[in-house]
Amino acid sequence: MAPINKRVTLADVARLAGVSKQTVSRVVNGSQAVTGETRIRVEACIEQLGFRPSLLARQLTTGRSFTLGVVANSGIGYLMSGKAYMDMVREADRMGFSLLVKEVPGHSLEEVTASFDYLIERQVEGVIWAGPEVGDSHAWLDDYDPAQLPMPMVVVNAGLRPGLDTVAFDNLHAGRIATRHLASLGRKHIGHISGPMDRWVSRQRVEGWRQELVALGLEGVHLLVESDWEAGSGGPCLRALQELCPQLDAVFVSSDRTAQGVLFEAHRQGLRVPEDLAVMGIDDLPEAQYFIPPLTSMTQDTPHMAVVALRLLVRRICKLRGEPYPAACATPEDPSLLHTLVVRQSTQGGPF
Amino acid sequence: MAPINKRVTLADVARLAGVSKQTVSRVVNGSQAVTGETRIRVEACIEQLGFRPSLLARQLTTGRSFTLGVVANSGIGYLMSGKAYMDMVREADRMGFSLLVKEVPGHSLEEVTASFDYLIERQVEGVIWAGPEVGDSHAWLDDYDPAQLPMPMVVVNAGLRPGLDTVAFDNLHAGRIATRHLASLGRKHIGHISGPMDRWVSRQRVEGWRQELVALGLEGVHLLVESDWEAGSGGPCLRALQELCPQLDAVFVSSDRTAQGVLFEAHRQGLRVPEDLAVMGIDDLPEAQYFIPPLTSMTQDTPHMAVVALRLLVRRICKLRGEPYPAACATPEDPSLLHTLVVRQSTQGGPF
Repeated sequence: MAPINKRVTLADVARLAGVSKQTVSRVVNGSQAVTGETRIRVEACIEQLGFRPSLLARQLTTGRSFTLGVVANSGIGYLMSGKAYMDMVREADRMGFSLLVKEVPGHSLEEVTASFDYLIERQVEGVIWAGPEVGDSHAWLDDYDPAQLPMPMVVVNAGLRPGLDTVAFDNLHAGRIATRHLASLGRKHIGHISGPMDRWVSRQRVEGWRQELVALGLEGVHLLVESDWEAGSGGPCLRALQELCPQLDAVFVSSDRTAQGVLFEAHRQGLRVPEDLAVMGIDDLPEAQYFIPPLTSMTQDTPHMAVVALRLLVRRICKLRGEPYPAACATPEDPSLLHTLVVRQSTQGGPF
Repeated sequence: MAPINKRVTLADVARLAGVSKQTVSRVVNGSQAVTGETRIRVEACIEQLGFRPSLLARQLTTGRSFTLGVVANSGIGYLMSGKAYMDMVREADRMGFSLLVKEVPGHSLEEVTASFDYLIERQVEGVIWAGPEVGDSHAWLDDYDPAQLPMPMVVVNAGLRPGLDTVAFDNLHAGRIATRHLASLGRKHIGHISGPMDRWVSRQRVEGWRQELVALGLEGVHLLVESDWEAGSGGPCLRALQELCPQLDAVFVSSDRTAQGVLFEAHRQGLRVPEDLAVMGIDDLPEAQYFIPPLTSMTQDTPHMAVVALRLLVRRICKLRGEPYPAACATPEDPSLLHTLVVRQSTQGGPF
């Protein structure tokens, strides 16, 4: 067995079989015009040479590309972590699709239009808009009738817009759950270190924290400081909160990374966590349980979000084409995803 | 301006211009057969409707796909981290290529062959073999004459093989540098917590550690324990090393994640780092400087590796086609990449 074939062309097969290229093409495309001995001989030559008909030709014949576009608009986006992206690649492959990633450098209407032109040129059958919602990055969607989009599209982790398919975590809910947890431990001065405030996700979490403080009758809606979601901002943000409120006894941090920086700063200051300061994050990174002390956090299953978005997109494509759904996306899934609270020593205390 | 166009077909343009589809096609392909007023009218209609000629048609005409395959063979692979992959997407786009990711579930010759068939069908012009070298995952390359590959290929972070383009970090060198650093601090019992030993990368680091111990005349080449590269294995691995050698005074850990687990375990045991035990990792994660204490590590710039591999691949494709190199890859780059030592408190001590 020749393990890997050099590119074999239609002409190679035709030469070996002693027929025209046209005839080989007909056999490949399953035309009934070639029968009997000729078909058998051509098929034997295809097998012998290991000829693979070009998918491009099939794409041109069927008018389908079997390709989905993934647009990352600024920064990397939720789906471009290794695991989430590979889960998507695998799931797409299972449903017969390849993924094509297009990075949009900015989010002006010109840039968005250019990215769609790029995707139309490549005849992608649907688009996953995977970049995070930052500033007015998604404003073009507000001005736009989704029915006018050139192909089905699913937006990931952005604000809901009427008529537009969106798969997202309920970050407002996450903010409420986190704050309720800290309050349940008797904390009275619960600060929040948000993510960048130009992010929709960050603002949703802030809103959840604020709503829950109000619902519980707690003071402190001014105890808000903005981080860049990196570990390095944990120290400066904690110090800023302490200046706003010397009695600060709990902090809900909008990422585990920044929470790690907060724990580092608390250690530096000689504070006891959680006795002096309860700290919790969000993401539930695998290593959060090895922070000192282990970090209370909230899981956010982004690979699941990626796969749910992909399945929803394929459903839309099938519906448009009047075709049955592949088994993998036969059942509709809830596009609103929830975080799960994971309580550890950084809020509840105890030995580790 | 209609910001995003519905799919406009050749037929739409032909109808508006009052010409045949053939004529539109000739204008699009720059044929000289259509001139004067007709050409001007067709071009105006193309502009007016926002018609984008299909790239598939161009691909079929030129015999080029302008697509490169990225094969992740098992697990995620070095290039599939968000930043590395997006850097590759951006660089490929700049050089006129799209990327197509194919996951190979295993690494039997059948599976490798099937993945190449998949890539040949899609007419990719070159391949980056991005999966990590695990067990006999790359054994098919040993049995294979690289000249027989159906398209140019660059292998990433695997052992060097004659005639095969490989871009990799020098992990043996990293193991030597790490061990030399710990020895320079006067440590006498330097254990190593390796990555999974079926990984080429892990074995190279072990070999570097061992060679340096021998070169320095230090005992302890038996102080070797295997981790899974996750934080969770740090504790069990440290305890295993302590059992092998109660005087253990330094440990070189094959990942920052596992090193975080080691710091956690040292803290749990009440050990002082680095006075009782010096700990260092490899990767230099952005958060390593916020570990308690801040971790000495070695940088490994995988996005750079991704881009170097991509540029090398495009050079090979251009060479094969007898075409000039794009500016981005005009200069050859060293395919052997080095880690850089970053010294922090977990080995050198001092306040933080």
